Amino acid sequence: MIVDCAFYEDGKRQAGDLTYEEAANKTKYSSRDGAFVWLGVVDPSEEELKSIGHQYGLHELAVEDAIESHQRPKAEMYDDTLLIVVKTAVYANDEDLIEVGELLIFVNPKFVITIRHGGASLEDVRHRVDERPDLLEAGAGAVLHQILDRVVDDYSDAAKAFDVDLQQVEEQVFSDERDNPAQRIYRLEREALDFYRAVAPLLDVVDGLARGQFDVVNDPLHEYFRDVHDHLQRVNGEILGFRDLLSSSLQANLTQVSVRQNEDMRTISAWAAMAAVPTAIAAIYGMNFKYMPELDSPIGYPLILLLMLGICVYLYRRFKRSGWL
Amino acid sequence: MIVDCAFYEDGKRQAGDLTYEEAANKTKYSSRDGAFVWLGVVDPSEEELKSIGHQYGLHELAVEDAIESHQRPKAEMYDDTLLIVVKTAVYANDEDLIEVGELLIFVNPKFVITIRHGGASLEDVRHRVDERPDLLEAGAGAVLHQILDRVVDDYSDAAKAFDVDLQQVEEQVFSDERDNPAQRIYRLEREALDFYRAVAPLLDVVDGLARGQFDVVNDPLHEYFRDVHDHLQRVNGEILGFRDLLSSSLQANLTQVSVRQNEDMRTISAWAAMAAVPTAIAAIYGMNFKYMPELDSPIGYPLILLLMLGICVYLYRRFKRSGWL
Amino acid sequence: MIVDCAFYEDGKRQAGDLTYEEAANKTKYSSRDGAFVWLGVVDPSEEELKSIGHQYGLHELAVEDAIESHQRPKAEMYDDTLLIVVKTAVYANDEDLIEVGELLIFVNPKFVITIRHGGASLEDVRHRVDERPDLLEAGAGAVLHQILDRVVDDYSDAAKAFDVDLQQVEEQVFSDERDNPAQRIYRLEREALDFYRAVAPLLDVVDGLARGQFDVVNDPLHEYFRDVHDHLQRVNGEILGFRDLLSSSLQANLTQVSVRQNEDMRTISAWAAMAAVPTAIAAIYGMNFKYMPELDSPIGYPLILLLMLGICVYLYRRFKRSGWL
Amino acid sequence: MIVDCAFYEDGKRQAGDLTYEEAANKTKYSSRDGAFVWLGVVDPSEEELKSIGHQYGLHELAVEDAIESHQRPKAEMYDDTLLIVVKTAVYANDEDLIEVGELLIFVNPKFVITIRHGGASLEDVRHRVDERPDLLEAGAGAVLHQILDRVVDDYSDAAKAFDVDLQQVEEQVFSDERDNPAQRIYRLEREALDFYRAVAPLLDVVDGLARGQFDVVNDPLHEYFRDVHDHLQRVNGEILGFRDLLSSSLQANLTQVSVRQNEDMRTISAWAAMAAVPTAIAAIYGMNFKYMPELDSPIGYPLILLLMLGICVYLYRRFKRSGWL
Amino acid sequence: MIVDCAFYEDGKRQAGDLTYEEAANKTKYSSRDGAFVWLGVVDPSEEELKSIGHQYGLHELAVEDAIESHQRPKAEMYDDTLLIVVKTAVYANDEDLIEVGELLIFVNPKFVITIRHGGASLEDVRHRVDERPDLLEAGAGAVLHQILDRVVDDYSDAAKAFDVDLQQVEEQVFSDERDNPAQRIYRLEREALDFYRAVAPLLDVVDGLARGQFDVVNDPLHEYFRDVHDHLQRVNGEILGFRDLLSSSLQANLTQVSVRQNEDMRTISAWAAMAAVPTAIAAIYGMNFKYMPELDSPIGYPLILLLMLGICVYLYRRFKRSGWL
Repeated sequence: MIVDCAFYEDGKRQAGDLTYEEAANKTKYSSRDGAFVWLGVVDPSEEELKSIGHQYGLHELAVEDAIESHQRPKAEMYDDTLLIVVKTAVYANDEDLIEVGELLIFVNPKFVITIRHGGASLEDVRHRVDERPDLLEAGAGAVLHQILDRVVDDYSDAAKAFDVDLQQVEEQVFSDERDNPAQRIYRLEREALDFYRAVAPLLDVVDGLARGQFDVVNDPLHEYFRDVHDHLQRVNGEILGFRDLLSSSLQANLTQVSVRQNEDMRTISAWAAMAAVPTAIAAIYGMNFKYMPELDSPIGYPLILLLMLGICVYLYRRFKRSGWL
Repeated sequence: MIVDCAFYEDGKRQAGDLTYEEAANKTKYSSRDGAFVWLGVVDPSEEELKSIGHQYGLHELAVEDAIESHQRPKAEMYDDTLLIVVKTAVYANDEDLIEVGELLIFVNPKFVITIRHGGASLEDVRHRVDERPDLLEAGAGAVLHQILDRVVDDYSDAAKAFDVDLQQVEEQVFSDERDNPAQRIYRLEREALDFYRAVAPLLDVVDGLARGQFDVVNDPLHEYFRDVHDHLQRVNGEILGFRDLLSSSLQANLTQVSVRQNEDMRTISAWAAMAAVPTAIAAIYGMNFKYMPELDSPIGYPLILLLMLGICVYLYRRFKRSGWL
Repeated sequence: MIVDCAFYEDGKRQAGDLTYEEAANKTKYSSRDGAFVWLGVVDPSEEELKSIGHQYGLHELAVEDAIESHQRPKAEMYDDTLLIVVKTAVYANDEDLIEVGELLIFVNPKFVITIRHGGASLEDVRHRVDERPDLLEAGAGAVLHQILDRVVDDYSDAAKAFDVDLQQVEEQVFSDERDNPAQRIYRLEREALDFYRAVAPLLDVVDGLARGQFDVVNDPLHEYFRDVHDHLQRVNGEILGFRDLLSSSLQANLTQVSVRQNEDMRTISAWAAMAAVPTAIAAIYGMNFKYMPELDSPIGYPLILLLMLGICVYLYRRFKRSGWL
Repeated sequence: MIVDCAFYEDGKRQAGDLTYEEAANKTKYSSRDGAFVWLGVVDPSEEELKSIGHQYGLHELAVEDAIESHQRPKAEMYDDTLLIVVKTAVYANDEDLIEVGELLIFVNPKFVITIRHGGASLEDVRHRVDERPDLLEAGAGAVLHQILDRVVDDYSDAAKAFDVDLQQVEEQVFSDERDNPAQRIYRLEREALDFYRAVAPLLDVVDGLARGQFDVVNDPLHEYFRDVHDHLQRVNGEILGFRDLLSSSLQANLTQVSVRQNEDMRTISAWAAMAAVPTAIAAIYGMNFKYMPELDSPIGYPLILLLMLGICVYLYRRFKRSGWL
Repeated sequence: MIVDCAFYEDGKRQAGDLTYEEAANKTKYSSRDGAFVWLGVVDPSEEELKSIGHQYGLHELAVEDAIESHQRPKAEMYDDTLLIVVKTAVYANDEDLIEVGELLIFVNPKFVITIRHGGASLEDVRHRVDERPDLLEAGAGAVLHQILDRVVDDYSDAAKAFDVDLQQVEEQVFSDERDNPAQRIYRLEREALDFYRAVAPLLDVVDGLARGQFDVVNDPLHEYFRDVHDHLQRVNGEILGFRDLLSSSLQANLTQVSVRQNEDMRTISAWAAMAAVPTAIAAIYGMNFKYMPELDSPIGYPLILLLMLGICVYLYRRFKRSGWL
């Protein structure tokens, strides 16, 4: 589905909506530097993509990449068009889930085509682009910068939300309540791994953009991509940290759960041991020997009861002191 | 066993079957660019290989590589012939098993020889090759591309199937049923390791092909190999992820199994502790003291029964509340 | 908030306080080599920063970096101004906490601007700078060296304090007291990770300064930055060691805790087993068979009591020898 | 001890045994290309080595290396003589032990000296060398190739045998028999480490030989060393895999052992709990209350016995269903 | 404290003791190649160091390095003087402790200054130096070689002693005695870490010396430093191996300790279960029912005793067979 198609010239979005065929023509005949078309497509069908690919002269392999949606983040030149594949990440707090979408960006001096599979709308990126005519003069690369900046900001937010979840899990692990968050830890590990696989390969991509590896990104933009790279590196470092912490959490959880369960067993055993003592004593005085002088004494019974009580109190105190009860 | 022997010219498979000796002659006297023989061999005997090696002038070491079948994936130039060794992988779901076969591909401007030990037939690769006369004009390298593309697609499928199995195991680990999938996890770890050893060394091989390291692969094909490389990298990343997750699974499983077993013990102990209380009380009133005034009271017995019941009910409720029963 | 604004010339701090606007003017019209302004700012508001940025001609992205305070340590040239971002670390012993602050240093042949978010005052760095007129002649870079030297010394102190805490935890793990310092170990792991993330990225930054990667740092200073780099490397090595040791601690703690708890269980069980023997014997002589000859013997009762005692003493000794009691 | 001393010329071993002094003279005055002496020494004394070193003009440090036998695999040029140190490995199946020997090979255009400390005889290498006059014409390097080829083949065999042992251990871990192969796993880990230390450093050595880093190895041999390098890489990958699997085995073993032991405890506890019920009921009817109407009923006793039996059968079934018995 | 001060010329130590001031003068006016002063200092005070630094024109930062003693191993040029910092290691067997000392070596064509903080005397190095006039002619670098050779030999001895300790611990882990060497393993881990931090950074230092990175070390010495580098690499490999093995030991120990403790528990429980059976039976015959025909039979009592005995023997055998007793 085409969601937006606009023509940018002199750092400004030109009024009026175009079909993408008209836009494609504009890119062919306009020769002004920094004039370009931005075509926004969401969840396109295979035919739409093939038709766009044909209109804009995209490489067969690049179009195939756009059709099958499970790509690895990468930057690749196909003839004079740069294809950037990035994963978008939004953290759905209520499910401890990072929703990963996919965004393909074709950048050419004459056009930017953004193809979005899932993930959040680029509406606000369009507004931010419009606010920076100074950058837009550097051409289509400025749009790429704004998009990546936004993607990385989303990563940053997702990482923050992830950290909140991680801290919740840590509290669960060490709380006195008898939770066993093993499954939640494991699910977070899977999330962290997916997140890592979205972020880590992008580092090289953005580094290449910052070091001017691709011609479509002009010099005044390099510093802006370096800035994005810094933010990306921070997020990447955080994710690596999450993975380390989750692995430690899993082990700490094993310790805590086993400690708590052993404490329960110890308590039950201690109480059972306390009950064993009067049982043993009572069993002795339940024996049927003819000659058991204590049995005939009138104070025998209360004395024995006192003895049982005394031993139980003694044990109780001792167990309490040992922290077993 | 020779399964196919054909002559390609001008991007088309020429009609008619050849013996490999005839084909070998064709390669010697045909001087047209992009004309080549494709010889397909399956599970050959040593003599067959030596004879082929002799006919096509293959290097002694290359032929030895083809005979002993446990090679590491690699790309090597022997004189002007490139030898590519790859592992094929098919996932047999019912056994949690990745069946690894081996494929050797000799590529020379004049011929492609594919030698297959186990693994799936290349029949459909032959069809796909025929459908792309445009690529075939680039010569024998186009065949190599189609084969590797297919091998990597198979990896991708195997990785998907592996992931399904892994998720099954995860469910087993965290399910309430008292399974202990330790052995299955371990077996998957072994599979993942074999898989990794098939895939990881191929990365360098395909990267070399994409960067034009070998002359037999001409320029228009480089981008196609780069595409294969991207897919391979994704699979490799997935396998690394599997290995991390399996290692965490093993630990999570230890936690879950020990938690469940401890819960059982706690339950049994709690019930036993509940039985200990009436035993102790009854033992006391089984003592044979002459003077035990309670024994003479007509309501002594029902009162004591009530006391026992009361204590048991109290304990039951308390244990229930602690989650021990 | 501006905390200091001074003009340095000929290796000496010039008397008199300046507003930062006056100082900014000085930097524009003074052409003497090695003459520069040092402007110290603490927890500035966004407006202050924008105003300073405007006065001193700082790059838009650099000012943004200074506003949002969670930066990754880095060194970056924006036009002819070098921006160094470092994390400061102070160890708050009573909380096992490393307090991480942030320090941004803009260095230009004509000025040094230090922007501090949290962390300790740079008062004493100022004194140390004043004591080294020889270094100050090398210009603004000398101030940068003194600041980084101080930051790294603080790291070193924090690492020492961390090690003390780690050793306390180790004592707890292996002490006979029944502590479970799992949570403390985990918290130290988190601290070590934060610490690592402050220190490790700085290594490249300081290495770049020592190898003369940035023009604002002149040659006689290179050796001084190399010295800082050495110290930083040592701290980094220590932190990596802490992380390894903490990971081992966590596992050793699991062993120790489970050993101690199992010892408790064994002791309780051993005592309960000892009580089971007289209970069983007494139960036998509590049976109501008509013909039990022992019951009629006058020495039956004392003999049986002796037997019980004998068995218990025997068991006690045996358990004691096995280390079970 | 000198075990062999022969003169090779024109790709053939010349008849007649030489003393090593005679052989040393031959190396000095023979000027034919590809003519060289092969001197084989086993477990030499220090004096022998010093004398040989003197006769063949070996470097002081190289001779010292040959005397002290615990060297790391390496390749080093001393003047115009290349010294290769390799570890030989033979797997002694009955002991789960890899026997590591040491082999030093001095290679010079004029001579090859092999010094063997332990390990298997090179007799068959000598035969294989004689069968390849074509390679021998390339000079002394051909002998080096045959030796390394054989050493790496032995590694390959040792790795296969190791894998068999590893699979035995895995079966032990997951078998129903109550083995605890922890010690065997640990011993295999030590073996794998020794093996790794023999193999891994050799990779660089053989790579250097394959890439023509040393002059004594001429061009037609490079491909042969590349072939050895491939095999070595495969072995190295296998060993790394063993280490990963052993580490997982150790953890899986912990799970399995603790699972089995807990199962035992659960069974014992379940039986004990079943015995507690009739005990408690019987204790109640053993009380001496005057008024216990059940005691006077003639069917009281059989009814109570039935009740006990009923409860026990019920518990037995329930425990059976839970898998506790 | 100055422990030695000598003048070397023409590969020989010149007779007569010098004060270090005299020696410093010699270095200034002597112009013969290979003539140099060796000044040995042990645990110097700050003033001594500053005075020496002044006499020999050492760089301010180098002197500071010598004063504060916790340096990281490194090699650094300060003007034309090379400063090498190394850690010395001696293994104190009775304490499982590696005693780490520090050695600073200033090397200049005209002098060698060795500053030792702790660690063993260099007396014997001096003798070894005197025995090699051939190397001494290469100048001050020869002294450096002898010192590093000795330091690395000490590492090698420490590694051997460490291995002995490690094997002791392994025996403890797998012995039948009920030791828990967790603390010892952990202490060895700390030692191995300290050892690693002493050895690993030295690798680059010695490699630099072997590759002729520093002018004060002349060509004939390069091979000698390469030899030291080989030894160092072997020690480093061993330490890495120790760390892997210790980590496995810790886990194997957890398994063994928990296995042994569970065995104890199982034994105690099995005995207790055996006692529960006669108790239950006896309790039944202790019931006070009026009509219990068995009680009146004269053979009731012996029969029941036999039954109890029979069950206990049966259980004993079964438990024995299961390995529970």
